[in-house]
Amino acid sequence: MNPDRLSVNQMTVKQLSLPELVKHCVRLGVPGVGLWRDPVRAYGIEAAAALVRDAGLAVTTLCRGGFFTADDWEDDNRAAIDEAAALGTDTLVLVSGGLPPGSRDLPGARARVADAIGRLAPYAGARGIRLAIEPLHPMYASDRCVISTLDQALAIAERHPAEQVGVTVDTYHLWWDENAPAAVERAGARGRIHSFQLADWATPLPEGVLEGRAQLGTGVIDLPAWAALLDRAGYTGPVEVELFNAALWARDGAAVLEETVAAYRAV
Amino acid sequence: MNPDRLSVNQMTVKQLSLPELVKHCVRLGVPGVGLWRDPVRAYGIEAAAALVRDAGLAVTTLCRGGFFTADDWEDDNRAAIDEAAALGTDTLVLVSGGLPPGSRDLPGARARVADAIGRLAPYAGARGIRLAIEPLHPMYASDRCVISTLDQALAIAERHPAEQVGVTVDTYHLWWDENAPAAVERAGARGRIHSFQLADWATPLPEGVLEGRAQLGTGVIDLPAWAALLDRAGYTGPVEVELFNAALWARDGAAVLEETVAAYRAV
Repeated sequence: MNPDRLSVNQMTVKQLSLPELVKHCVRLGVPGVGLWRDPVRAYGIEAAAALVRDAGLAVTTLCRGGFFTADDWEDDNRAAIDEAAALGTDTLVLVSGGLPPGSRDLPGARARVADAIGRLAPYAGARGIRLAIEPLHPMYASDRCVISTLDQALAIAERHPAEQVGVTVDTYHLWWDENAPAAVERAGARGRIHSFQLADWATPLPEGVLEGRAQLGTGVIDLPAWAALLDRAGYTGPVEVELFNAALWARDGAAVLEETVAAYRAV
Repeated sequence: MNPDRLSVNQMTVKQLSLPELVKHCVRLGVPGVGLWRDPVRAYGIEAAAALVRDAGLAVTTLCRGGFFTADDWEDDNRAAIDEAAALGTDTLVLVSGGLPPGSRDLPGARARVADAIGRLAPYAGARGIRLAIEPLHPMYASDRCVISTLDQALAIAERHPAEQVGVTVDTYHLWWDENAPAAVERAGARGRIHSFQLADWATPLPEGVLEGRAQLGTGVIDLPAWAALLDRAGYTGPVEVELFNAALWARDGAAVLEETVAAYRAV
């Protein structure tokens, strides 16, 4: 795939400090990074923004807002929007959160997510931030994200202007869904694809299924077909590689980053 | 739920021998069992049929045919149909199998499953066996079952007469899917629900995600809502509890069976 569009998500090589990540991205010709709130806040928002900007890197996304079941969700999401603006990105990825504690009401939880996004959308739009609703694989529906398909994410996004709310298309979460390609084309035609993330799917999944996002090319997802689908949908933005993988995190971060760049180019 | 419709799937208490399973089902007033091919073949098909029949138990399903990526899939599935008929059940559950080794062609794999079922349907119908296509949770799409939604299963089933091919509705696999309730109602109206299986969903999922099927009432699935949905769809058949759970398998099988019967009644 086109190296000019590559972005490496910070979690892919979370063993690297922010300065190390920036240094190695510059060395390897990676033009963009996706950042996460916790490490960026630990480093300092303004300092992080300056570090990345001075290195000439784009911040393709901030991950993440959402988790609308938390008591302080509204304050926390407004803070995330402010942080995204301070970092110079235009996109905040939203992961909705799972069922409230003790609840079995999945339709109710999904309705509350839609309501919450409705309350945040104008605030985000006023600050130049696009909310990118990310459907997570259905195996996370109970504990991390009740939005399980691109159709669901798009249905919520379409209640708002595209410059306020769109979707994240992530191959790991959507590869199994026969309805996803049509949803991608619809989202693209309507300017709703605000982020495109790559990871591969390999089994067996680890306990808890959170750290199964595999290196590109090592799993079963037809990544070139997904890239072509996004092209057909008119998406021309960054392509962000986001791996969550304990085996990769245990290795030298610079080596993993080099390998990731090579794997991306080979797809 | 109605105790007259309860069936306990053999895998729920796989630590019990077939005679123990039968004995304890009779003792606890469980009227039906779902059987698995391997333990039944090890015991002897005719002997198993006589044991269950003489105890007055119904065999609600035989699990399972499918796995259409295996070289000998056609012979093996014809054998499974014959075994189902010999055991006196009218339903063979089909799990399609995952992607062929080395393949990333998910649409192709799904098309091959549909073709394979087309070749088996008349053979099954001639022996009084209904094939019940079971969609498995999307987290199994790569390695166990490329049929991930009830809509997909129903689309394949509807190419054939309902007395030859229908679907299995399993709460564990379908609970997350907002399109599943409409598909259940459609399947019921067309006489396509050939099996209804219960398990609950609890996190964290274990490594490999195969043994996460939780005891009824211990997870997040709104099981009474699912039972009501099946009622509305006109389904009046057996309700089979099928748990795959290493913690339950490690315990005394009779105690787990008693607990399962109580959990079913409490739903």
